[in-house]
Amino acid sequence: MPDRIDMNSDMGESFGVYKLGRDAEVMDYISSANIACGWHAGDPMVMEQTVRMAKEKGVGVGAHPGYPDLLGFGRRRLDLSAGEIENYMLYQMGALYAFAKAYELPLQHIKAHGSLGNLAFVDLEASKAIARAALRFSKDIVFVALTGTVMVQAAREIGVRYVEEAYADRVYNPDGTLQSRKIAGSVIHDPEKAAKQALTIVKEGYVIAHDGTKVGVRPQTLCVHGDTPTAISILQKIRAELKKAGIAVKPMGQ
Amino acid sequence: MPDRIDMNSDMGESFGVYKLGRDAEVMDYISSANIACGWHAGDPMVMEQTVRMAKEKGVGVGAHPGYPDLLGFGRRRLDLSAGEIENYMLYQMGALYAFAKAYELPLQHIKAHGSLGNLAFVDLEASKAIARAALRFSKDIVFVALTGTVMVQAAREIGVRYVEEAYADRVYNPDGTLQSRKIAGSVIHDPEKAAKQALTIVKEGYVIAHDGTKVGVRPQTLCVHGDTPTAISILQKIRAELKKAGIAVKPMGQ
Amino acid sequence: MPDRIDMNSDMGESFGVYKLGRDAEVMDYISSANIACGWHAGDPMVMEQTVRMAKEKGVGVGAHPGYPDLLGFGRRRLDLSAGEIENYMLYQMGALYAFAKAYELPLQHIKAHGSLGNLAFVDLEASKAIARAALRFSKDIVFVALTGTVMVQAAREIGVRYVEEAYADRVYNPDGTLQSRKIAGSVIHDPEKAAKQALTIVKEGYVIAHDGTKVGVRPQTLCVHGDTPTAISILQKIRAELKKAGIAVKPMGQ
Amino acid sequence: MPDRIDMNSDMGESFGVYKLGRDAEVMDYISSANIACGWHAGDPMVMEQTVRMAKEKGVGVGAHPGYPDLLGFGRRRLDLSAGEIENYMLYQMGALYAFAKAYELPLQHIKAHGSLGNLAFVDLEASKAIARAALRFSKDIVFVALTGTVMVQAAREIGVRYVEEAYADRVYNPDGTLQSRKIAGSVIHDPEKAAKQALTIVKEGYVIAHDGTKVGVRPQTLCVHGDTPTAISILQKIRAELKKAGIAVKPMGQ
Repeated sequence: MPDRIDMNSDMGESFGVYKLGRDAEVMDYISSANIACGWHAGDPMVMEQTVRMAKEKGVGVGAHPGYPDLLGFGRRRLDLSAGEIENYMLYQMGALYAFAKAYELPLQHIKAHGSLGNLAFVDLEASKAIARAALRFSKDIVFVALTGTVMVQAAREIGVRYVEEAYADRVYNPDGTLQSRKIAGSVIHDPEKAAKQALTIVKEGYVIAHDGTKVGVRPQTLCVHGDTPTAISILQKIRAELKKAGIAVKPMGQ
Repeated sequence: MPDRIDMNSDMGESFGVYKLGRDAEVMDYISSANIACGWHAGDPMVMEQTVRMAKEKGVGVGAHPGYPDLLGFGRRRLDLSAGEIENYMLYQMGALYAFAKAYELPLQHIKAHGSLGNLAFVDLEASKAIARAALRFSKDIVFVALTGTVMVQAAREIGVRYVEEAYADRVYNPDGTLQSRKIAGSVIHDPEKAAKQALTIVKEGYVIAHDGTKVGVRPQTLCVHGDTPTAISILQKIRAELKKAGIAVKPMGQ
Repeated sequence: MPDRIDMNSDMGESFGVYKLGRDAEVMDYISSANIACGWHAGDPMVMEQTVRMAKEKGVGVGAHPGYPDLLGFGRRRLDLSAGEIENYMLYQMGALYAFAKAYELPLQHIKAHGSLGNLAFVDLEASKAIARAALRFSKDIVFVALTGTVMVQAAREIGVRYVEEAYADRVYNPDGTLQSRKIAGSVIHDPEKAAKQALTIVKEGYVIAHDGTKVGVRPQTLCVHGDTPTAISILQKIRAELKKAGIAVKPMGQ
Repeated sequence: MPDRIDMNSDMGESFGVYKLGRDAEVMDYISSANIACGWHAGDPMVMEQTVRMAKEKGVGVGAHPGYPDLLGFGRRRLDLSAGEIENYMLYQMGALYAFAKAYELPLQHIKAHGSLGNLAFVDLEASKAIARAALRFSKDIVFVALTGTVMVQAAREIGVRYVEEAYADRVYNPDGTLQSRKIAGSVIHDPEKAAKQALTIVKEGYVIAHDGTKVGVRPQTLCVHGDTPTAISILQKIRAELKKAGIAVKPMGQ
């Protein structure tokens, strides 16, 4: 049983006058923040504030790059070449790095957002383009790869530093993939259930799929959504259970 | 008399299918490239290509950040707070840094573009915001300050590394400011004249204003436009004259 | 004493996943909606929904065009030529017109947003550019001119159909201009006070400035903000008082 | 044999300082202009100039809407819902309509651009969304449907006014579809060949596919690219041959 785990959540998705998410609250419970980089969400003012808050709370700072589609919040598939993906990732990582640097923090990790993230789960070339951008940016940056997807293979082939990730609050298919959000109930809102899934993953090394199948997972980071109505309760419950189990919550890069 | 000078020019101003400038030609004659960062011009593909070309030709890579106004090419004044300017500069420097890093180059310098650059000539707070962003990004980055403007004062007050800049191909006012582009003839197109002005600046330490006044200038970098019809001829002539005078052309950061 | 007045409010300022304002509630109390056109806020999905809602509630549909600055919500001055303003207004009016047309509604009016609106209060050329765009678009469209500003003169010089506008919930200066929002208390949040100001304007033809001066105003439309905490109470109170006074609330274009 | 045909070409694809195409030259040879609407290309200043030029030359004005992807020039597939397509089309048609209205011209037609156009060739729901937007905008607007594609079926099902279109300068497959641009030689650059294909289509009612198959086509409009090196020669040659054959070139909406 591992004695530590990272908890990551998406942050900094406000834009201009538009507010989204409860970053200040969520930041108290996580160890790594996936920060939007201004393409699908976020802007320089929001990025600066989010990085500052992460520093104050000892949370690791990562890039959460997405498609150039603010109008669709990066949730609509855009048909890009591998070269475009790689350069778009570099651009967004660099943009966030500047704020990390201004606060004397390293850029800890990269985790692709939305529809680009979904593509990376199933498309090896797209995954490799993201991993390649990460490695070109820095050998220290951690590439977040959803466990059970081609992202893990991409990370190995490229030779980038990486961690495997599992979801505390998403329902799993028997093959280890996430149940589509289009299916009702695919996001777990019950804090008890989410905490139980999180602890089973961390302590036991498996997750129970919707049909009862046990799927082996050994993640180094757990993702929890910060934008569901019960997000804070879920985060509190998971932290409490991890504490009881003697498992520390630490940024993935440490 | 100095035995070296830097020559800088704006680069990477294409966007998507739109082509602008003669970067491949101009890059042969300069030692520092001011590369657009995707806000007023440029995009990640263009940035990657421009940085690669700069590396191949031994040219120093700098950020050329502008207003978030692609439609106006950054040439229209936008009323920003000092905090907005500082964060917008960090964002754009970081974005370009990623491509420099991917090619194992340092981010050498920052030079503000267009209407933001014009503002910095006369507005100490705007200049300081840019200088502060530069210093927060890195103590090694060079802030390009137009000689004779408040940019020099801003650089000193902030404590950022900086160089002073003069224009080879712009007409000067007797007070050392640039004659407005709105006045016909304010950009010098004659290679002989531009080369003469460049050499007088570098060798003699002054520039002759439109009324004959000698204005003292001691720049470490000369700006030459790459987008005028005679740009290449001007660049060739200046390089030839500098060579004759035994003055080396080297990136400002070295 | 007039037997009718129009009440207008800004609508449709959401963008993509970002929600802003309480349009569904506010729409019940107004007779004209100023709908954002996708440049400083709004998008085609939001515009379609807002126009549909306006139709259902018998509310007149107007364009609320702004600067091309989503990042700044159109609240930052951008230095445009008169030709740029005119064409940017045409573009945005046309975009909104399409949704009005799809719902078989006329495009009733145009009211400039944010920093562009503020410019129009004091800059005759900017006001005329907006008025000219309106007239070129249609001789039936109503140009909303803040009473006591150069917008009224611009409307007359251009020959566009227009109405004068006063604010129910903004504090006035003795010269008839609005007190700057930068001064605390310049937006009235007390429903009693706002209703009283509204009724004094409509029934008595004057507004009492912050120093007690009576300023004559004869507006055909009253603006009420929909985004203040007490907006609905203010709207309800004004409607109740107008009803008591026998003054009908009708779209400005009728 | 028809005694008339329309010739259409894409126009107004410049953006800000970026120039694209040879609109002023091409406009002399066509009868209908497909004008970009600011999403994949074009801006209000370009739209105004292009509409003015079309008016001067008696050319019909149509909307050429595309994906919201200036960075990719609308040539990258973006996964949109039918509702998004419909509203994005309304928005862009309206925007262009404003300039047509300002010059007292009708909005004659709509032809989808780039990757959205390609989608419409093969996706009935996407085609119907575009046709529905056209019909909702105006019963007079002409929907341009590539002959031999589901666009024709979409036009009929929706009940929109439409014309069928064929290409003078694209190579055809034996099934009547266009050979992919990814295959070398799929765009015809030889004026003789293009003119011959154009005349065969108009006079004989068929086109010869790359394998020699005769494919029946009865278009009311011919598309010719304005951005190939030989575009002007092709246009001149086609016009000369049509004249010899006694076939008039007239806007599709007349």
